[in-house]
This record gives sequence, structure tokens and C-alpha cells, in this order.
Amino acid sequence: MLLETKGDVLREAITRTQSEIDSLFDALLPVPGDTSARLVEAMRYAAIGGGKRVRPLLVCSTAALFGVSRDAALRAGAAIEAIHVYSLIHDDLPCMDNDDLRHGKPTLHKAYDEATAVLAGDALHALAFEILADDATSEDPFTRSELILTLGQASGMSGMAGGQMMDMVADAEGVVYDLHAVTRLQQLKTGALLAAAVEMGAILGKVAPQGRAHLRAYARDIGLAFQIVDDLLDVEGDIEKAGKALRKDDAQGKQTFVTLLGVERAREQARALVDQAELRLASYGPEADVLRALARYIVERDR
Amino acid sequence: MLLETKGDVLREAITRTQSEIDSLFDALLPVPGDTSARLVEAMRYAAIGGGKRVRPLLVCSTAALFGVSRDAALRAGAAIEAIHVYSLIHDDLPCMDNDDLRHGKPTLHKAYDEATAVLAGDALHALAFEILADDATSEDPFTRSELILTLGQASGMSGMAGGQMMDMVADAEGVVYDLHAVTRLQQLKTGALLAAAVEMGAILGKVAPQGRAHLRAYARDIGLAFQIVDDLLDVEGDIEKAGKALRKDDAQGKQTFVTLLGVERAREQARALVDQAELRLASYGPEADVLRALARYIVERDR
Repeated sequence: MLLETKGDVLREAITRTQSEIDSLFDALLPVPGDTSARLVEAMRYAAIGGGKRVRPLLVCSTAALFGVSRDAALRAGAAIEAIHVYSLIHDDLPCMDNDDLRHGKPTLHKAYDEATAVLAGDALHALAFEILADDATSEDPFTRSELILTLGQASGMSGMAGGQMMDMVADAEGVVYDLHAVTRLQQLKTGALLAAAVEMGAILGKVAPQGRAHLRAYARDIGLAFQIVDDLLDVEGDIEKAGKALRKDDAQGKQTFVTLLGVERAREQARALVDQAELRLASYGPEADVLRALARYIVERDR
Repeated sequence: MLLETKGDVLREAITRTQSEIDSLFDALLPVPGDTSARLVEAMRYAAIGGGKRVRPLLVCSTAALFGVSRDAALRAGAAIEAIHVYSLIHDDLPCMDNDDLRHGKPTLHKAYDEATAVLAGDALHALAFEILADDATSEDPFTRSELILTLGQASGMSGMAGGQMMDMVADAEGVVYDLHAVTRLQQLKTGALLAAAVEMGAILGKVAPQGRAHLRAYARDIGLAFQIVDDLLDVEGDIEKAGKALRKDDAQGKQTFVTLLGVERAREQARALVDQAELRLASYGPEADVLRALARYIVERDR
């Protein structure tokens, strides 16, 4: 019963955030009257109407702990989602993962073309920083700078892009990583941006860096659990539900949490991480229920 | 004699800026100890030791009008150069312009591979904003935000990326632009970033937006002159000196300032723009000599 209620809390929060982020991207991406319209249309195709919006949800739910206005949290959420969407567009390119399907529809380079996909990714990347730097927001400049630095570091060479390169080197050169290296790779590739989402919520809440330690630990735990479950779903998931290609790790002979730990131990590890993530939130009351439900959802999801 | 002296002023300023920007990138791009090293090596390959560094020179020379510290100007210069370098990497990709040569050496996707080129471009893009947002700089947060917004807008969908898309649509769909459309395309594609360089120098100098009008006009004039001369060099230039492929516009049957105006009128137009650009600087004394020489150099260069 309690679980069901928590599930409802989460479902509601996800649906609300999805709709708000869609509206915000719609407003941020007006189609111009010249031939650059094609660029903005491609950006809209990729950015609007897809995905669970986990990162904006993390920003908003963390920010809500500290009474941050919904508008401010959503803008930061849209910025980090723009980074996430750009990274998916570029990852899907033929020279990268060469994927045809994303969120149940053709990937951007399939629906448009490769050059448009490169460019739309780049423009969404710039948009993220435009959103955060815009002085029309209510945020003070110091907060804006801190948000931008956090997002830049999480997405750049010491974050997502660095992790992506570790992954590519393994694929291309057949480097076999051990558990330690796979953990580090995933912490960079997907963990850094999830952690940035939580961090940005706390920055908006004016929490001093030393006061963010337990939230950072929560984010680290769910980030790792998220990736372990992704690896499990790649082996056991339903392609219809996933809306993207599966069984790719195995086909590539790649080391993942599942190949390194086995299905059972991987699942146990994900559960343990989520239990631990919930403990990190012990100092909060019901106001952290969405964050708790989100952690739980990560291991229970089937796509 | 006067021209020679101005030439020396410029040569000195270019050489100094090249060496300082190289040192700064060297410090900003330490090679990590893990397999993401390949990413940083690729970023260094593209970012260090190439190019005239026109954009950093514009930032530094404009900032110098207002007594801005050289360090602060160079950091902003490195940020805008990181954007310029990332855009060249992505433009050179096989799905875009498919170029093999840049600054006289193999393009990044030739020296490494396409996936690495996409990713290194992305990481340099993020680096630009990391540099500007870093609170280790002496800039106040308000100035940092303003620099970031200026750079984000100049490089994103309403700037460089938008212009690039206009260009691609012309190539792909055979849309024939008139002079007005080509002018707008170029103002977005190359003009926006050159204008941002001057604007960033003025922002660092705490010049209020209304006080930047003449500098913006200077930047607009030299930006357009720069592109007209680029089109002229594509027709008349020496490939050895250029260090990149030429005669591409003609091969593609593309409308340029040269096809629209003819060689002679295009050259006259470039000269008139540079004269006008110099007039924009009439309120400054010798402290603006580098900006004047740079405008002059733009029409006189042979590569």
C-alpha cells in the first residue's frame, strides 16, 4: 500500500515534469522564418515529447526540498535535459553507436540526416548554457555561474564526454575493463550528469557545498544503480518497452556490470545501492518522497 | 612607412596571442591517466598550435581599450577559441564539409576517427563554458554570466549553428540565396562569433550595452569583410598558403559574395567595409591601433 502510494507520487511527478519540460522547450525553440528553420525543427523533434525526464525531475525534486520556485528549477531542468538530449543525438550517430531507434521513433539522423543531427546536437548544447546564463531568470549571477560550472564539468572531458571516450576505447581497442574501471567509466558517462542534476537542485536551494555531501552521495548511489539496471535490461529487457535497440553489450563482447558480476549479484548490488540511497535522505521527511520513490523506481523499472 | 609600422604592431600582437593561447590550452587540457586520455589528446591536437587566433586577438585588443587585465581577456579569448575550434572539427566531418586538411595538417577525424572528432568537438564546446564559469577567475559573477550568454547566443541556433544550417540547406536543396540572404547567412555563420569576441572584450571592460554600439558596428563590418575576402580567396587563393581545400564554392555551384557581386565589386565592398570599420574607432587613439591593423589585414591577407 505504502509502495503503491509512493508509486503514485512518482508517476504524478514524472507526468507533471514531462509536460512542463515539453512546454518549456516549446517556448525556448520558436521556429524562425528563414531556412535555419530546419535546425530548430530538428531540435524540437529530439527535445520535445520523449524520455522520462529523470534529470529535470531530480533537479526539481531536490530544489523542492529547499523551497526553490518551480520555474527556476524547471529552467535548470531544461538546461540539463538539453545536454542529455544532445548527447543522445550524438551517441546515436553512425560513427558512434549507430542506433536507428530512440524513444520508440527514428533517431534524429534517420528522421533528418547526419549533418543536421550533428548541428542540432551542437545547438542544444549551446542552448543549455544560454538557458542558465539568461539574466531574465530570477537567479542571482553567482548562482547562475555555479549552475553553469557544474553542468559544464559534468558534461565535458572530466564527465560525460570522458566516460564516453573510455567506453569507445574499450570497443575499438578491445581493452577489457575490470569492475573498478567499469564503475569509473559509468560514473563519468551517466553518473556525472545525474549527480549534476541533484547538485543543481541544491545550488538553486543555496545549500553550501559542504551541506550537499549527503545529496551527492544519494546521486552517486542511484546513478550507479541506474547503470547496473540498464545493463540488466540490456540482457533481459523487452525491446518494445525499451523503444531502443537491446542486446548490444553482449553482441559487442563488452564488459558490463552483468558480465562482471552475473545477473543475480548485479541485481543485489543495485538493490543495495538503492537502500543506501534512501538512507542518505534520512534527515528529510515526506518532502523527499519523490526522491525516495525515484530511487526505488530505478531498480524496479522494466524499461 | 605608417602601414609597415601598423603591420608590425599586428604581427607582434598575433604572435603574442598565439603563444599565450597555446600555453593556456596546454594548461587547461592536462592528459588524464585513464583511457579517456585519447579524448584530451584529440582536443589538444585540434586546439593547440594552429590558427591565427583572430577571435582571442579581438577579445584582448578590445579589452585592452578599457584596461582589462591580460589574464582575464585571455581566458575569455580561450573560451571563444574553444568554440571556434569545436565548430571547425564538426564542420570538417565527412557528413558536413568532408575536409581532409586544416591548418596544413590532417583534420581531426583523419588523424583520429570520426567518433573521436564528434566527441572532442563536444568536449571543447563544454570547455568554453567551463572556462567562463570558473569562479577561480577574477571576474565578478555578473560579468561571467554576461560573457556566457553572449557566447552561447553567438554559437547556438540564433548564431553560428543557425547560419551553418542555412548554408547546408542551400547545398542540399539547391536553394539559391540573393545578396540579402547570403549576407544574413554569413552574419550568422561567421559574423556572430567575431562580433561576440569584440562584445566580450567590452563586457570585460564593464562597458554598458548602449556604449558598445560602435564596437558592435566595427565587428559587424570586419566580419562581413572577412567573409567577402574568404570568398575571394576561395577563388583566387593559394592552397599551399591556405592550408585547407579551396575552389569548393564553385565546385558546389554555391552563391557567394563573389558569384553575386563579381570579383571586382566584392573586393571594393570589402575595402569599403574596412574603411567604415576604421571610422567606428575614431574616438580611440593609438590604443586601438591593433584593431585598426586587424581590420586592414582582413582585406590584405592572402590566406
